[in-house]
Amino acid sequence: MTVYNFSAGPAVLPTPVLEQAQSEFTDYQGSGMSVMELSHRSSFFDAIIKDAKKRLRELMNIPDNYHILFLQGGASLQFSMVPLNLAQNKKALYVNTGSWSKKAIGAAKMLDNVAVEVIASSEEDNFTYIPDITPDMIDQDAAYLHITTNNTIVGTAFQTIPDAGKVPIVADMSSNILANDYNVEDFGIIYAGAQKNIGPAGLTVVIIRDDLLGLCEVNEPMLDYKIHTEANSLYNTPPTFAIYIAQLVFKWLQDLGGLPEILKQDQEKAQLLYDAIEKSSIFTSPVRQDSRSITNIPFVTGDEELDKKFNAEALAAGFENLKGHRSVGGMRASLYNAFPKEGVTALVAFMEKFEKENGGA
Amino acid sequence: MTVYNFSAGPAVLPTPVLEQAQSEFTDYQGSGMSVMELSHRSSFFDAIIKDAKKRLRELMNIPDNYHILFLQGGASLQFSMVPLNLAQNKKALYVNTGSWSKKAIGAAKMLDNVAVEVIASSEEDNFTYIPDITPDMIDQDAAYLHITTNNTIVGTAFQTIPDAGKVPIVADMSSNILANDYNVEDFGIIYAGAQKNIGPAGLTVVIIRDDLLGLCEVNEPMLDYKIHTEANSLYNTPPTFAIYIAQLVFKWLQDLGGLPEILKQDQEKAQLLYDAIEKSSIFTSPVRQDSRSITNIPFVTGDEELDKKFNAEALAAGFENLKGHRSVGGMRASLYNAFPKEGVTALVAFMEKFEKENGGA
Repeated sequence: MTVYNFSAGPAVLPTPVLEQAQSEFTDYQGSGMSVMELSHRSSFFDAIIKDAKKRLRELMNIPDNYHILFLQGGASLQFSMVPLNLAQNKKALYVNTGSWSKKAIGAAKMLDNVAVEVIASSEEDNFTYIPDITPDMIDQDAAYLHITTNNTIVGTAFQTIPDAGKVPIVADMSSNILANDYNVEDFGIIYAGAQKNIGPAGLTVVIIRDDLLGLCEVNEPMLDYKIHTEANSLYNTPPTFAIYIAQLVFKWLQDLGGLPEILKQDQEKAQLLYDAIEKSSIFTSPVRQDSRSITNIPFVTGDEELDKKFNAEALAAGFENLKGHRSVGGMRASLYNAFPKEGVTALVAFMEKFEKENGGA
Repeated sequence: MTVYNFSAGPAVLPTPVLEQAQSEFTDYQGSGMSVMELSHRSSFFDAIIKDAKKRLRELMNIPDNYHILFLQGGASLQFSMVPLNLAQNKKALYVNTGSWSKKAIGAAKMLDNVAVEVIASSEEDNFTYIPDITPDMIDQDAAYLHITTNNTIVGTAFQTIPDAGKVPIVADMSSNILANDYNVEDFGIIYAGAQKNIGPAGLTVVIIRDDLLGLCEVNEPMLDYKIHTEANSLYNTPPTFAIYIAQLVFKWLQDLGGLPEILKQDQEKAQLLYDAIEKSSIFTSPVRQDSRSITNIPFVTGDEELDKKFNAEALAAGFENLKGHRSVGGMRASLYNAFPKEGVTALVAFMEKFEKENGGA
């Protein structure tokens, strides 16, 4: 049985990447060692981390005044690092678009010397849309404006990045990094857990503009962006194997034609599923049309029992991890870059069959 | 050419572990998915993390009132987490036995409300021995006594754990965890970066006694042991693949006969090398006899040019990463659990040959 993995993260990885990593797993490029066994100070690993950075810079068109960091701790650690590094004794603005935004807001609020202001929220409507952010909402004295560009659980995404004037935008891009047409120059900081669109869990990518380093005194060296920047992400031992897999994923994306090409594929995959939902008489999208994500697509029948039946039959048919997050219910298909189009086609066919068998029009 | 990897970390891993991980790299136990692609909330991964914990508990005889955490950030993040969780508005005692102790001391000193006291140091003698710690040196009001049980760079190790009375001992055990006969009950907290004796870089194992949780308010959720304990290390996405490799390493150790057996092997390997150094007329150990580590063994000729020649010839002969740390010079052999005895025998033979060719007696 072909298995299609719709997991929201850790998520499906490109088959060619897995196959290459497998083939050289015990002997990396004739070194006689696994990548996991390489010293992080070795010339082998030096070449890996430099190449990973270079490729990510090329893929995302990251200007020279931005640093690329490979850190640990996931987006959750960034929720504290961002305000500690940028907003001590200042105000920080947040847009609340879902569970992860709320966690970011909560972590900032725990810091005594950071004034947190939530300038917009869609919580009153179960986060089913992205609120409008207009320039007049942005206090120009704020340290930053934090947004979650894509909301993994509810399936919304910023279609355009707000104009925040001179206030840097800090973005949690965990679930749509490398699957958007945003412009890096519109951000002060971009951060992303790797386990959705980059590689294995345990790696966090941070892209930070040079002028945002060293603004506040940070009392924990491992939480200080400046220290990691000056050490080229080698302040301590980095997650070497995860960085190697990320390097292979970046290369795979470049070989495919880069972001414009993968974005086209992502949009086609999403369109297939959204079209199926639109024409269905039993499935609907809970998300407002103008706010829909192309990477995380929830859908529901409106009938808990029917959702449950669908999820059980889908799982039995090889559709893994389709069950929606408990806070939304129903189903959710995460269609990251590595998710194959055939998987969407197969899901759509399965949905049509299910609909016929279960009283659909 | 057979390659022997003497790296101090990331370090050599057991061949059977690498082979098993390679064989199921793209299809874990018939799931159709790589371990890296498994959701951390899946039943597959749940079984992995539970089994890893269970095996580590068995291997180290960890009592029930200790929690096992799988975290990120390395020992370096622990340097801040330990004082934040245990010593705010209190005194913290440290023994300074090398570069990593100094980093731990430095990180604690950065916290305004922690009073750091270094109660003993071997710095005046280049850290070539472990200072004696006697009960009268321990202020019984201190939050903890921090020691580095094994010093990777200088090659010293605590042969016995000091008696600190009721003050909990916090140990950075990164380079000799699972390669000692310490008693877990003698510690309040044990922490270790995985990349030496456990698995790949990017995983930190923390073993913490129940009564040490929740003592201080920690303003960064990801730095709070209590949060990670209550979430069973799943507060956010953990480094899933690294935990899986650790599980395989723990199983490998148990299959070998557990810690008593591996410790016997480690001692034999170390003895082989120390004997060769003792009987050599050109190599010496810079470490005082009663303080020597069995996992990290530095040796020098006393002649920088000769060290350089040895390192170049050794590297050409397949002895990888033998070069000593720049702060000590000379050579260093890291003989972690996965390092094969044949590698030590081969090194000793190579040393004898080199000695004959280079004016040895």
